[in-house]
Amino acid sequence: MNTFGEHFTFTSFGESHGRAIGGVLDGVPAGLHIDLTLIQSELDRRAGRGKVKGERRKAKGEEVNGGVSPRALRETDEVEWLSGVMDGVTLGTPIAFIIRNSDARPEDYEWLRHSYRIGHADRVYQEKYGIRDHRGGGRASARETAARVVAGSIAKQILAEKNIHIEAKLVQVGEETNAERFDAYIAAIQQDGDSIGGIVECRITGMPIGVGEPIFDKLQAHLAFAMMSINACKGFEYGSGFEGVSKKGSEMYLSENTRLISGGIAGGISDSTPIVFRCVFKPTASNRKTLRREAAGRHDACVAVRAVPVVEAMAAMVLADWHDF
Amino acid sequence: MNTFGEHFTFTSFGESHGRAIGGVLDGVPAGLHIDLTLIQSELDRRAGRGKVKGERRKAKGEEVNGGVSPRALRETDEVEWLSGVMDGVTLGTPIAFIIRNSDARPEDYEWLRHSYRIGHADRVYQEKYGIRDHRGGGRASARETAARVVAGSIAKQILAEKNIHIEAKLVQVGEETNAERFDAYIAAIQQDGDSIGGIVECRITGMPIGVGEPIFDKLQAHLAFAMMSINACKGFEYGSGFEGVSKKGSEMYLSENTRLISGGIAGGISDSTPIVFRCVFKPTASNRKTLRREAAGRHDACVAVRAVPVVEAMAAMVLADWHDF
Amino acid sequence: MNTFGEHFTFTSFGESHGRAIGGVLDGVPAGLHIDLTLIQSELDRRAGRGKVKGERRKAKGEEVNGGVSPRALRETDEVEWLSGVMDGVTLGTPIAFIIRNSDARPEDYEWLRHSYRIGHADRVYQEKYGIRDHRGGGRASARETAARVVAGSIAKQILAEKNIHIEAKLVQVGEETNAERFDAYIAAIQQDGDSIGGIVECRITGMPIGVGEPIFDKLQAHLAFAMMSINACKGFEYGSGFEGVSKKGSEMYLSENTRLISGGIAGGISDSTPIVFRCVFKPTASNRKTLRREAAGRHDACVAVRAVPVVEAMAAMVLADWHDF
Amino acid sequence: MNTFGEHFTFTSFGESHGRAIGGVLDGVPAGLHIDLTLIQSELDRRAGRGKVKGERRKAKGEEVNGGVSPRALRETDEVEWLSGVMDGVTLGTPIAFIIRNSDARPEDYEWLRHSYRIGHADRVYQEKYGIRDHRGGGRASARETAARVVAGSIAKQILAEKNIHIEAKLVQVGEETNAERFDAYIAAIQQDGDSIGGIVECRITGMPIGVGEPIFDKLQAHLAFAMMSINACKGFEYGSGFEGVSKKGSEMYLSENTRLISGGIAGGISDSTPIVFRCVFKPTASNRKTLRREAAGRHDACVAVRAVPVVEAMAAMVLADWHDF
Repeated sequence: MNTFGEHFTFTSFGESHGRAIGGVLDGVPAGLHIDLTLIQSELDRRAGRGKVKGERRKAKGEEVNGGVSPRALRETDEVEWLSGVMDGVTLGTPIAFIIRNSDARPEDYEWLRHSYRIGHADRVYQEKYGIRDHRGGGRASARETAARVVAGSIAKQILAEKNIHIEAKLVQVGEETNAERFDAYIAAIQQDGDSIGGIVECRITGMPIGVGEPIFDKLQAHLAFAMMSINACKGFEYGSGFEGVSKKGSEMYLSENTRLISGGIAGGISDSTPIVFRCVFKPTASNRKTLRREAAGRHDACVAVRAVPVVEAMAAMVLADWHDF
Repeated sequence: MNTFGEHFTFTSFGESHGRAIGGVLDGVPAGLHIDLTLIQSELDRRAGRGKVKGERRKAKGEEVNGGVSPRALRETDEVEWLSGVMDGVTLGTPIAFIIRNSDARPEDYEWLRHSYRIGHADRVYQEKYGIRDHRGGGRASARETAARVVAGSIAKQILAEKNIHIEAKLVQVGEETNAERFDAYIAAIQQDGDSIGGIVECRITGMPIGVGEPIFDKLQAHLAFAMMSINACKGFEYGSGFEGVSKKGSEMYLSENTRLISGGIAGGISDSTPIVFRCVFKPTASNRKTLRREAAGRHDACVAVRAVPVVEAMAAMVLADWHDF
Repeated sequence: MNTFGEHFTFTSFGESHGRAIGGVLDGVPAGLHIDLTLIQSELDRRAGRGKVKGERRKAKGEEVNGGVSPRALRETDEVEWLSGVMDGVTLGTPIAFIIRNSDARPEDYEWLRHSYRIGHADRVYQEKYGIRDHRGGGRASARETAARVVAGSIAKQILAEKNIHIEAKLVQVGEETNAERFDAYIAAIQQDGDSIGGIVECRITGMPIGVGEPIFDKLQAHLAFAMMSINACKGFEYGSGFEGVSKKGSEMYLSENTRLISGGIAGGISDSTPIVFRCVFKPTASNRKTLRREAAGRHDACVAVRAVPVVEAMAAMVLADWHDF
Repeated sequence: MNTFGEHFTFTSFGESHGRAIGGVLDGVPAGLHIDLTLIQSELDRRAGRGKVKGERRKAKGEEVNGGVSPRALRETDEVEWLSGVMDGVTLGTPIAFIIRNSDARPEDYEWLRHSYRIGHADRVYQEKYGIRDHRGGGRASARETAARVVAGSIAKQILAEKNIHIEAKLVQVGEETNAERFDAYIAAIQQDGDSIGGIVECRITGMPIGVGEPIFDKLQAHLAFAMMSINACKGFEYGSGFEGVSKKGSEMYLSENTRLISGGIAGGISDSTPIVFRCVFKPTASNRKTLRREAAGRHDACVAVRAVPVVEAMAAMVLADWHDF
């Protein structure tokens, strides 16, 4: 199904090369002022446009745009609000919005009508549904995440009113962990027609104690679910994560650094210290080298770059879903 | 809440030092023959008793029992079936079962009445609920996982009828990756009064194509949710996982080894190749060194050991929940 | 929340005097041919336009239009399909659609900005949400049911492929039970500036045996839920219904007429005989007499008339939600 | 499925002639004192024992026990608490309980092994599940409602702390509406080996304004769902109900009596006036006349009598499920 959450729910719709993508947000309290400009800037950030929070830079052309696909840069991603908001204030009713697909170029994907791409879900879609929108991956396209970013931006604004802040950033690209070199590294990968993996770290501050449930609905379980639902995400860890395997208990708990270990969650429940988690994104299979085509659609050299605001959006929706804290 | 799944649902109940733990399984088809002996052997495996599938050995006492706590070894964990089964055949009605807590020793935990343990959820529980069953962690105790193993064992039997098999094993303990040395390594850690982390790998074979949904309800998202709901699990990865960060797309997709990358899932949907995922478990904080007490409850040197059947159980419940494939 | 169903889900959005109303249908199988003309004719039926299945007649003006409000007759209710359908065939992805509110006349409702109407939810909305879209009732308006009719029409088409047919009709208006006199009766009520109650009966044929669950999720419970969610519906009964109170068991079960008693459902589960249920609709409070205003918005003399296709739509969604029969 | 509610959830299990029936209540806040004696008296009331709130009288034998079956009178229905409660105080964890089936007499039902009873779900069960516990109806038996009464009694205690009170009573038996004559009337029906229908009215006082949702999750929809899930219930109405069909708007809303019309709910949301609804129960098919057997199990002459506490229990669970009002 295409709905996320139980109390603050987001229903996503739209094919990447159809008329529009969009979503319906339900469970948003009435009377909230929504900053529409902020939402637009989040969308620009996802699209790889503009300079947002320092992690992205001016786009000047394919060579130096940080590995973001030209389609993303061209699209304006303008949100049309259909319901739930009157004069910038929420009504407590479902908020429906759409983003028209102005730059749909189905002809770029014509060659796919009778082919499956390596590393894509083309074949499983065909088998599962007996039908497949071969144009740009249909629902599987990363374009669907634009709707998540709109929804997540509203969730973030709700959380900000409670002084909860979510900030994600790229912490590794390939084997590179020096953020200053990410741009040059990715540009080189792209010029080579290749792609590369990346790790996004997300930090949530201002959490009250008590969010999460002790058994199945642990906070980390919901965060993992949300992150693993993002395209190309292959792993999730929080606190001590995979590195913790080689730690002894005595080492871990008797040090000063217990916050890092817990990752802000104890027994499935937020403990009021910052929540820290990381997600890994694989390199996209849609690059010139892999597909052995020059004009093989329009894709990113490092999908982790544009995943940053999506990680924030999904984390915000997880927290907004615990509506009564 | 204490229910897992939507169609094949498992509701867990019981405090670790109360009268009984147990569960209710709903959505189990009618007419299924259940092998009760198999369920009992899975429970023994979780308890660290007996020799099951080679990964566990005879328990001969605390020093050489592979780091399993004496309580686990003493308890018989006998399942009492209350409903849903008649003469070993399911009725299509809810299957309720209980396991009595024969070995509850609340006096071992008396010192905790006015203390919070390092690395445990004691404090967040007190804050969240205003009340806390200080005896052995109440619901947070790993004992709750015995009920999961019973439910998972039934799920595994349902899957086995469709030729789907799930097998998890310990692949790393501390920095040790040679399975033959795990026992000696863990025994040494325990004798030192310390604890250590571990990684469990799980492999699912016989999957049909088409299980999972393209957007939020990706198969990997449900698996991650299930694993992250297990106590002490700090991370989940599948296919290329975290190692994939340093891979280039050309390297990854043009090699022979694409199955490893996908981990058996494409676009959120099973692709019929084996599903492979890994979970990391941190060292328990409840060891003699950390707590600075000799008689500090009865705990495991490496919780990943007993997590193995729990990982299988949760994976089985995830798959059984997709009831109509 | 604004979502109905669990497997075949319908999410409704839109204020009656905002930009658009609409919905998202999820869980619709891929490859289904949808008859868009049929959906349009269902909408016309709900709007009181055209002659559909004989129960409605040509609208010739306010006096003789069967008590349907002029707004309903003016609006074209044209559906714009945003996603999920390509060349009239479903893609298996969410079907999103909107109906623009072309005839919104907020000025008609200006007098309501500082008033609560008798018999309406104006006051509870204000208390619950702290904000209220006073224009035409916002979400509470019967206009929202247009989106239900679109969704229900798709559900009916899915059911028709399984030879399940749903047909509702008006069986009582006031104390009148002769269908031929309904039009004249309602016209008289309207000319008098008053309103009147009505009963709609719905008959479902072609049901297989086995739809429904024995305990809580009884088929009749889901039908009752769906019907009671329609505006102005004050009661639901099936089979022998309220009349059955005065029947003796011997009388009821030893007669020839046991089908009528069961109403097509036994123990919560369809028994393959026709399902028959009835809903009662109260007179609307929005009439000239009650409001003591001549130009008091534009309302129906007997809301049960236009409830007929809504009853069918909701019944269809209940059945489509049991997706695997 | 066998779970009711989403936040305050009740999972029911157990066959009427198996080892035990029982349930799990989840979402009950921590720190609540539970009056176990009160729960026991509610169970006695459902069983037709004792004098509770005046509507039942001393049982003196089959002839004069108000039409309650001898099995009901013999059974003690003692609740065994398995988890979630410590020293009479809730822990915030799932509350599991069982009631042993001390009086199971499967031999009484032996004749049913190869027969379907008129007016029962025997046949649809066989078709749906391919297996059937012929002994006393298995899950379909009214005995399952004992578990509902336990859960509902806890819900009522939670509501009572918010000054919300629920009281149901029998208001009609056959055509008799004089409560003083009910006992004699039912006794006569029973002596004749027959059965009769009845209507239960339920009144909820102390409701705050604002409980319920405007579109699908209307409060009346949830109440209807809950009532229609009770065995033998054939109809639900609230406020003006079915009688309202013959009312004109002017008559209804300009009278003094608007509270009766609304039934305490406006636009799906509680309006703070008393909620009043009614349910009709058909005569049971299991009487001597219908079955043409003398020793045909042990059944009630008017099931509506024992439905009274079940109606209260279900209403309480509906309201407790709106946990955050």
